[in-house]
Amino acid sequence: MTELRFNELRGEVVDYAIHRQERTFLPARDHCPLDPTRAGAPVTEIPFPSFEIAVFDNRFPAFESPHGAAEVVVYTDDHDASFASLPARRAQALMWVWRQRYTELGARDDIQYVYIFENRGVEVGVTLHHPHGQIYGYPFLPPIAEREHEADVRLGGCAPCTLLARELADRTRVVHETASTVTYVPHAARWAYEAHVVLREHRASLLDCEAGELADLAAALQGLARGYDALFDRPFPYVMAVHQAPTGGGPAIAGAGHLHVEFYPPLRTAEKLKYLAGSEQGAGTFISDTLPEDSAALLRAAIARAPMRGEGGS
Amino acid sequence: MTELRFNELRGEVVDYAIHRQERTFLPARDHCPLDPTRAGAPVTEIPFPSFEIAVFDNRFPAFESPHGAAEVVVYTDDHDASFASLPARRAQALMWVWRQRYTELGARDDIQYVYIFENRGVEVGVTLHHPHGQIYGYPFLPPIAEREHEADVRLGGCAPCTLLARELADRTRVVHETASTVTYVPHAARWAYEAHVVLREHRASLLDCEAGELADLAAALQGLARGYDALFDRPFPYVMAVHQAPTGGGPAIAGAGHLHVEFYPPLRTAEKLKYLAGSEQGAGTFISDTLPEDSAALLRAAIARAPMRGEGGS
Repeated sequence: MTELRFNELRGEVVDYAIHRQERTFLPARDHCPLDPTRAGAPVTEIPFPSFEIAVFDNRFPAFESPHGAAEVVVYTDDHDASFASLPARRAQALMWVWRQRYTELGARDDIQYVYIFENRGVEVGVTLHHPHGQIYGYPFLPPIAEREHEADVRLGGCAPCTLLARELADRTRVVHETASTVTYVPHAARWAYEAHVVLREHRASLLDCEAGELADLAAALQGLARGYDALFDRPFPYVMAVHQAPTGGGPAIAGAGHLHVEFYPPLRTAEKLKYLAGSEQGAGTFISDTLPEDSAALLRAAIARAPMRGEGGS
Repeated sequence: MTELRFNELRGEVVDYAIHRQERTFLPARDHCPLDPTRAGAPVTEIPFPSFEIAVFDNRFPAFESPHGAAEVVVYTDDHDASFASLPARRAQALMWVWRQRYTELGARDDIQYVYIFENRGVEVGVTLHHPHGQIYGYPFLPPIAEREHEADVRLGGCAPCTLLARELADRTRVVHETASTVTYVPHAARWAYEAHVVLREHRASLLDCEAGELADLAAALQGLARGYDALFDRPFPYVMAVHQAPTGGGPAIAGAGHLHVEFYPPLRTAEKLKYLAGSEQGAGTFISDTLPEDSAALLRAAIARAPMRGEGGS
């Protein structure tokens, strides 16, 4: 069902999953496959009248056992909620679900890298609006995990630890802090409002975190997501990427990493998108028209004014 | 005006060009800055009543002398034309203009890599519809040029030469040929309708090509672009990326390369776009729902049925 091919010129694997042509595309509001199953109505992906968090295999997987995994993580049975609007306890529970999936998928011999992410908004190609994320278990070490390992080697130690120390010394790009986490726009952000949420202590993965750290991580991620929604007073599209230690890839790499969550929002103004075009696609160099210090100032203010506990929709 | 920063986690330079926030964005049809200047009307970027091909410095440059270059190449004074619809002689002349710019920019000490490209269509963020391309002179070796050099090292010789030989032996993905060029969908295409136009002989750059090869290259590029427009019977968006040997970057890299032109079209069906989302942005792995052999068959047929000499709009 899926096929991996090595792209020589780019030095990377491309994954072909032809059956994904048939995947559900922006269904009508009352045909959401991630809604709970209501009495008398057809069964959805979740055969229960209500639920808290649901995890199941993607029906249109990019990777399939025993050559990787593709799972869906539904955050809530409320179709109109968002990650930002989840109650704090639910967001905390999600961190434990992520941790459990990282552990279970990471233990599999066919999985080298467990990657938890969320695509939010039609601007990044979302096909289902119901609040959910995904988990891919890659049967190889993907390029960006390799790049992060190269950064560790280049900096002579944990790169996220080094970069966090620099950001805390500089402070101009720090936008939010909790006891266990720091959120900042990176010094060389590729996206106008890119932000990273980083654990203060060196933690390779969610598995190494204490309960208080997981709670702080949930609060930091929600704080940032709410700040994004407040920034332009509109639901803010993003890719949320949880970067953790590879669970395979050889002894030099497996287990080496530092848990951090990167957000890539495609908006550069309230209405204008950043497109990946000639320079980004054909040369690999991002051209940005926004200085990280300027977007950090706007984002810091947006996080400060965003409601800390939203229960409604976004 | 521009600032380069090194992104440690990705191992790549990001370019900040803040003044680009002010760049002209989809102006009204009768205010096109790339039109010729008409009698009694305000002066455009091109102060002549008609022209063939115009090259000038980008008013909103991503790179500026003496730290690189950013030029605009206007293909015609006909606002409603397209690269595909240019007369064959004009397309041939364009190859000579590209060659001249590669030579002149490549000779500059502050430029390591000359990159000629075209963004076509609002789907890839085009801000001016008038047919034109761009040339960036990077003051560093960009990541994809590095990846191509790594492929040469990995394959123990010229990677495009090796890949071309494989495609010609296999033939299932070849879509068009001229005496000097082969066009194919690569074995591990990242985009559904990605195609590469490759010189049969080893040519590091346009500078090494004979006149007949430049004419064939123009015909091959136009043949592909017309095939794209015929594929779904609509103007087909793409990024066209001319890859040539770096003109700097050290003795191991400068001059090493093989001229080829890569097209990255964002469409995966007549109406559906491929978005770069979680896997592509956060892991670096493309997930495709289209097999290269299948898209090659469709593209081959589209090129065969496309008019070989269109003079009208696209």
